[in-house]
Amino acid sequence: MRFTSEQRLDDGVLEREFTLGEIPGTLWTPGSAPAPLILTAHNNGLPKADPRLVARARYTAARGYTVATIDAAGCGDRPRSAADEQARAELRRAMRAGEPVDEIFESFVGPLVEKTVPEWQTTLDALLALPEIGGPVGYSGWTAVGIRLAVVEPRIAAACFFAGGYVPRAQREEARQVTVPLLFLLQWDDEGNPRQRALDLFDAFGTKEKTLHANLGGHTGTPWFELEDTNRFFGRHLK
Amino acid sequence: MRFTSEQRLDDGVLEREFTLGEIPGTLWTPGSAPAPLILTAHNNGLPKADPRLVARARYTAARGYTVATIDAAGCGDRPRSAADEQARAELRRAMRAGEPVDEIFESFVGPLVEKTVPEWQTTLDALLALPEIGGPVGYSGWTAVGIRLAVVEPRIAAACFFAGGYVPRAQREEARQVTVPLLFLLQWDDEGNPRQRALDLFDAFGTKEKTLHANLGGHTGTPWFELEDTNRFFGRHLK
Repeated sequence: MRFTSEQRLDDGVLEREFTLGEIPGTLWTPGSAPAPLILTAHNNGLPKADPRLVARARYTAARGYTVATIDAAGCGDRPRSAADEQARAELRRAMRAGEPVDEIFESFVGPLVEKTVPEWQTTLDALLALPEIGGPVGYSGWTAVGIRLAVVEPRIAAACFFAGGYVPRAQREEARQVTVPLLFLLQWDDEGNPRQRALDLFDAFGTKEKTLHANLGGHTGTPWFELEDTNRFFGRHLK
Repeated sequence: MRFTSEQRLDDGVLEREFTLGEIPGTLWTPGSAPAPLILTAHNNGLPKADPRLVARARYTAARGYTVATIDAAGCGDRPRSAADEQARAELRRAMRAGEPVDEIFESFVGPLVEKTVPEWQTTLDALLALPEIGGPVGYSGWTAVGIRLAVVEPRIAAACFFAGGYVPRAQREEARQVTVPLLFLLQWDDEGNPRQRALDLFDAFGTKEKTLHANLGGHTGTPWFELEDTNRFFGRHLK
């Protein structure tokens, strides 16, 4: 892990860009240590530098968490194959047209999840090797990656998943194997995530300790107070 | 409004029993005034002295809210007619047997809601006439009564409803007229409240600012942190 830049923010949080092989990432550490670590895996369509994602990470770090994010393979600003670009375009077109997207989604996002999870594990190894980072470890964000990671990675102690209307078949089937405490956050009118599928997924999770939060509005309309609720959820399970 | 007893609790909260005509109630006022008022209307099958209800009211008052509850007509320790007792027994029997309960429910709970709401309005008038109580006013608890009260009573500024699987037809139809900020709390496996009906009710509320919280488990299994979340919800809208 190689740090390429750093800046100290007003509230004492240290924000550092890093690379780990081909993986670019950002690490936020709060002024006070030791702090629980939260891996925030954003939706594959956004770069990790998206202002809303950065604002959330800084807010969370200022409240006493170490936060890390990466652009996983094929995501964010990472190179994309011509086939990936074509699949993304086709997915967007089909969604706009209101056509069924399951097959495109399955053939495109399924492999993306398979490639992303090992990169998160590599990142987690490197993060926990840093002297300033301990545990325990939480996961927040992209549902499909989080399911797989929670199933294969025993170091994940609690998870917050967002949306989850479209999730590859493999992860829908793995959902019952998720046994860590879970906060499942969805937008009631999410234009890209069918509500009933998200509710079915919540029902399927194997954990005994799961909470659903839903708010009115579209995919990007999550109210700010849900970030505070997420931090409190991690506070109950990681602190 | 006549106070019949009072005790000062450890955290400075004053707990007073009162009667208002035939209505028995309890009022908790925090050490610091003025405080927003929360009307907590419990399920009609419980008395207001139920230890879990009292614990929640004390907890909320200790966090800076005035809390009031009553035993409404035919509820709690109030006299019940032979017809009411028979309807309650029949409802319990049908639920245990897994038989449809809509008609019993409609004919029994519908009129109960109609009788309860004016008693809450009378109580609210009397409470707001006390020098130590101002506003704004929130409502927490029994869904059907809360819907009717939120529709007919402009002094209600925010509401938290619990369960809501069985709600009389009149209130299901009025749900779209509820326009105050709303927190809707349900138990995912509530044995007495069909999940899909509760989700449909959440969908029907007319308010633009509504949040759903659901947790695994049966009717009485709501985790304690939801009480903290409810207090924060009221904090955002009443303080």
